[in-house]
Amino acid sequence: MRTVHTASALLIGNELLNGKVQEQNLFTLASTLRALGISLCKAVVLGDDVAELARELSELKSRHDLVVTSGGVGPTHDDVTFEAVALAFGVARVPHPTLTALLEAHYGERLMPGHLAMANVPLGAQLLGTSEVVWPTVVLGNVWVFPGVPELFRMKLVVLREHVRGPGPFHSRSVFTKLDEGHLKATLDRVVAANPNVEVGSYPKWFDATYTTKITLDGRDASEVERALQQLLSQLPEGEPQAIDEGPGQSWRAPT
Amino acid sequence: MRTVHTASALLIGNELLNGKVQEQNLFTLASTLRALGISLCKAVVLGDDVAELARELSELKSRHDLVVTSGGVGPTHDDVTFEAVALAFGVARVPHPTLTALLEAHYGERLMPGHLAMANVPLGAQLLGTSEVVWPTVVLGNVWVFPGVPELFRMKLVVLREHVRGPGPFHSRSVFTKLDEGHLKATLDRVVAANPNVEVGSYPKWFDATYTTKITLDGRDASEVERALQQLLSQLPEGEPQAIDEGPGQSWRAPT
Repeated sequence: MRTVHTASALLIGNELLNGKVQEQNLFTLASTLRALGISLCKAVVLGDDVAELARELSELKSRHDLVVTSGGVGPTHDDVTFEAVALAFGVARVPHPTLTALLEAHYGERLMPGHLAMANVPLGAQLLGTSEVVWPTVVLGNVWVFPGVPELFRMKLVVLREHVRGPGPFHSRSVFTKLDEGHLKATLDRVVAANPNVEVGSYPKWFDATYTTKITLDGRDASEVERALQQLLSQLPEGEPQAIDEGPGQSWRAPT
Repeated sequence: MRTVHTASALLIGNELLNGKVQEQNLFTLASTLRALGISLCKAVVLGDDVAELARELSELKSRHDLVVTSGGVGPTHDDVTFEAVALAFGVARVPHPTLTALLEAHYGERLMPGHLAMANVPLGAQLLGTSEVVWPTVVLGNVWVFPGVPELFRMKLVVLREHVRGPGPFHSRSVFTKLDEGHLKATLDRVVAANPNVEVGSYPKWFDATYTTKITLDGRDASEVERALQQLLSQLPEGEPQAIDEGPGQSWRAPT
């Protein structure tokens, strides 16, 4: 188990940028990292361009403890993630004997040379698995390579959960109010100034009769978050807030 | 009307990276730009950090003809987009008289000093509107600032449609097959090599009985796309493809 503080994501595929497919893995990843206590700092969406991807990976891996990529791991010409990772680390791509054996076992006599392209991973890559996830995850340095198909991406996050964790959990509270942001600004500024370690968010809700603004309080120290919450509540006018933590209507749901 | 070839997106907000909110505007933007014939090359998701945002904006605006930002335009402390745009262009933020007047008219006697923070835009910013969209869109150079609330973001895209367009439309065909990518690789490599101006995509579909791989062909020249399609079809085995353009099952739908 390795402790990491910060992470970033590289979401790969022309289809994510040309309006053909709606990106779905960022939210899954963000929720998972959050639950692990890891800060996801940045996500980048790029098409299937090796040079662009390698350039971005070089920067992300030097700035964050953990980099997760999504997509581009199949055997066809537009699957260039392993090539980009190899380029970013300045290593060659070589057939990995374990992956080759797994592909041979999986496809049997239906195996085509095309399938074996998927075993061609950057030199020095580790293969990580769990008892639940048979197909190994390719990891090089701090870069974790995941498939882009949302069902597979979700399944593979088990491997991440088994191998990394953050320095501790996040604590979150939220307050729902009918006041708009212009009315809340002065109050929020005071709460922000008095609680430098608490992240205060303010989210207007449109087309909803049950509340106008959701205020979030997040931090690594539960007592600091509670103190900020009490300060905020003490400064709201009579009749507020509409609700705490759970939205007053059906329109808001915590991500699952 | 301005002709632009390339675009990028900067999607702003801590909530997009901490698992609280699922990003929704990238797909809407991607579909809109695609329909306009503009190539969306990159999207970046960042939290509410002025220095990080300004640094990213500086790079995006120098590399792409058009940059669209989403989020961070409200009046509270976590709305830092205008500040980041000002920093990226090296200009000050000043109250814009038109925006101030609009806010005064909108809020009337309920106006608070907090509301006026939304009129504080980068010096030199243009205000663009249409007859349909009353609230103006703030544009500085090639950077367009849109709100993050998905309902509002979608509404504002009308302004983009009225003011920019690409060099011409994209042409797209797609082919659905029960062959897997390993079996398709050699065929696809030949189609790719013979059609350098056609973008060939290959997308495995999991947990679907109606097809295994969707192949897409995209380009700016319709006749080149058609030629690539015919080359591909002529190389598929008997019984293939399962369908062309419209998926064989209900599982695939063109984005609306």
